[in-house]
Amino acid sequence: MNRSIDATHDPNLRSWVESANQKDTDFPIQNLPFGVFRRRGNAEPSRIGVAIGDQILDLTRCREAGLLQELSQELQQACTAPSLNPLMAMGSEASSALRRRLSELLRTDGETPPPEEGILIPMPEAELLLPATIGDYTDFYASIFHATNIGKLFRPDNPLFPNYKYVPIAYHGRASSIVPSSTPVKHPKGQRKRPEEATPSFGSCQLLDYELEVGFFVGAGNELGQPVAIANAEEHIFGLCLVNDWSARDIQAWEYQPLGPFLSKSFTTTISPWVVTLEALAPFRCSAFQRAEGDPLPLPYLSSPQDTSLGGIDLTLEVLLRSQQMRDAGMQPFRLSLGSFQQMYWTIAQMLTHHTSNGCNLRPGDLLASGTVSNVQEGSQGCLLEITQRGTSPVGLPTGEVRAFLADGDEVILRGYCEKEGYARVGFGECWGLVLPTD
Amino acid sequence: MNRSIDATHDPNLRSWVESANQKDTDFPIQNLPFGVFRRRGNAEPSRIGVAIGDQILDLTRCREAGLLQELSQELQQACTAPSLNPLMAMGSEASSALRRRLSELLRTDGETPPPEEGILIPMPEAELLLPATIGDYTDFYASIFHATNIGKLFRPDNPLFPNYKYVPIAYHGRASSIVPSSTPVKHPKGQRKRPEEATPSFGSCQLLDYELEVGFFVGAGNELGQPVAIANAEEHIFGLCLVNDWSARDIQAWEYQPLGPFLSKSFTTTISPWVVTLEALAPFRCSAFQRAEGDPLPLPYLSSPQDTSLGGIDLTLEVLLRSQQMRDAGMQPFRLSLGSFQQMYWTIAQMLTHHTSNGCNLRPGDLLASGTVSNVQEGSQGCLLEITQRGTSPVGLPTGEVRAFLADGDEVILRGYCEKEGYARVGFGECWGLVLPTD
Repeated sequence: MNRSIDATHDPNLRSWVESANQKDTDFPIQNLPFGVFRRRGNAEPSRIGVAIGDQILDLTRCREAGLLQELSQELQQACTAPSLNPLMAMGSEASSALRRRLSELLRTDGETPPPEEGILIPMPEAELLLPATIGDYTDFYASIFHATNIGKLFRPDNPLFPNYKYVPIAYHGRASSIVPSSTPVKHPKGQRKRPEEATPSFGSCQLLDYELEVGFFVGAGNELGQPVAIANAEEHIFGLCLVNDWSARDIQAWEYQPLGPFLSKSFTTTISPWVVTLEALAPFRCSAFQRAEGDPLPLPYLSSPQDTSLGGIDLTLEVLLRSQQMRDAGMQPFRLSLGSFQQMYWTIAQMLTHHTSNGCNLRPGDLLASGTVSNVQEGSQGCLLEITQRGTSPVGLPTGEVRAFLADGDEVILRGYCEKEGYARVGFGECWGLVLPTD
Repeated sequence: MNRSIDATHDPNLRSWVESANQKDTDFPIQNLPFGVFRRRGNAEPSRIGVAIGDQILDLTRCREAGLLQELSQELQQACTAPSLNPLMAMGSEASSALRRRLSELLRTDGETPPPEEGILIPMPEAELLLPATIGDYTDFYASIFHATNIGKLFRPDNPLFPNYKYVPIAYHGRASSIVPSSTPVKHPKGQRKRPEEATPSFGSCQLLDYELEVGFFVGAGNELGQPVAIANAEEHIFGLCLVNDWSARDIQAWEYQPLGPFLSKSFTTTISPWVVTLEALAPFRCSAFQRAEGDPLPLPYLSSPQDTSLGGIDLTLEVLLRSQQMRDAGMQPFRLSLGSFQQMYWTIAQMLTHHTSNGCNLRPGDLLASGTVSNVQEGSQGCLLEITQRGTSPVGLPTGEVRAFLADGDEVILRGYCEKEGYARVGFGECWGLVLPTD
């Protein structure tokens, strides 16, 4: 099920792209995440690139230079598409083959001729776009610590609904308003009603929040009516990114009954631009979260020995905030939380299998997200609603400012990376958004 | 706001397509709904057609024959696209101009030369496809009678949530599993838990239901961050269709807290293939639903004099069922309900404006649906959950069979039509689905 560890993960591999050999880079030759970019100020169609150090390897130019000739024609064509969808559609064998070739190409000890002119683009010269055309976006609720913390705020005696430990809870999200990192986020308006008010009013959201999530892109799809068995689920997952599921908590509280969140989420969702493949994550796979004594086992359709032993991902996640005042004072962003993706109650394979269990078809490029990632430890909570206890315990910033919820001018930065003794660091880059005032 | 009544609605207009002049046709020359089709057994790309009597006018052939020359180049190109999205994107002026030209073309008294060979295709020779690439699908809950009936089953003393009369409640639906009429529906599996059981199990849905809804397609879109004012909302609506939002009630009851329906809906949604434009519906516009004494007025952002006076649509809707046994006995489908779209608590303009009020962008071809249409009268309820009171009062069929919920082999047929003294009947055709057993 899991892509295995091979020569592409060798920590001694070095690239002729020097910046890829620095210890703290997110993008060493062992990572090779995929994205879609356009040269700034250029009207040409978008193209696929691979992050390597502080550069982007342009796959269209690679193909033009004959560097991908050993790959199938179909795979070469997918490399020059304007989005990752065709490559995703080809499934995990194709993405593994491409990874091996890219690793060869970028190695210092490879047989590759010196790089053609223009094969690399410095990252600052590129605009990073959405990696795929996202047909459908689904948001899960897979952190039991998040679900419990949120539940406690509303139902102190009974925070978790009875279905939580059986059902990977999710809702359909809005695909049209997913934007790539660096897109500013307009402070939304909406209907909200304070408990002390008799009637609702329409206006600027007063309780704007972020949510730290991990997203995963569907690779090969499944046909309508054809569920994906848990043992095959990861064959349908191309790779992961970071997701900020911006949330308007006052709009959410007023609108969500009985059909769930709607406008409180659909104003913007930001994703990080680089898709880190399951191949790159192979060394960081770990056992699935161990359920507490007395918790039910997952039902058989959500259960497989492989998923239990290797379904987790040891991915460290952090959230940082920088206010306008901090920016003006030249301060670095301030860390709000630090946690791991390891503590999720449901694995990515379980989420995907559950999604298809009714026959629902997933299409290449569809995005599934984990829901807010919170761990059991203090300081690991993935949204302000939890961190500030619905605003009652605001966070202090280094400027002396406090935040119960987000303010206009705040930057929110999500970061993710995998580190393990004996392996190169594999990073996700940043998922960045700046809150702009309402018109 | 509303497209006005003009010469294309003249009830005395007759077409040289004889079947369009029959009294009971859904598709007289006053209708002219758009769809996308392919000749059966033909691998050519899909193309746009217009229903006229029992024929389809092929717009690609019309353009090739020079019959659309008076239209702009952009509009002519949109007519030969493989889906309606480009035409939808052009907005209501373009669709109105095209309608006028098609009306001229099909009239007996027009200046049009005799039709070229192949401009018309008999409907039985065509496979009707989805009319548009649907980027996002949103499902509302706009019938207060439906919301009250459902609420009563679960909360007899307090059926409506406090937000209902203020917020056009909705949730994001699944776009990938929307299928055109005539696609069989596979009986879904899923997790469900009976009240008397301690733990859930996975298996075939036991409480399969349909939901009668009206859908509307977005025409011109709006940019992210740019809400659409209620006065302009209908300029962004291309036209309407029928929607069967198949629902697995046992899966729904177990999964829906706290984030709303998910797999209970996403296994299949069926839509009727012909999109009836707002232009065609102009004679059937009526005042918005009159709220009961004491109900709050819509908030200002959801309120406009035009929408109050003409925001409704007097559209008659019916649901029919035919079981395998009825089919074997050569019986006609049996009518389960008859109602009107006039009694919706929220207008289509209010739904669209609310959807964009947080800045959410709608794209051409996006589908919004009304939620189950039920009226206050007995016999007008749009799903079995209501009709049979959660299965406690099953419906008798003419064969002596009873239905608490749907059975394998059942056909469910939705029909919709507008009739008014002094105007030609404008129909929607059928939204048809047959329930197939689980594998």
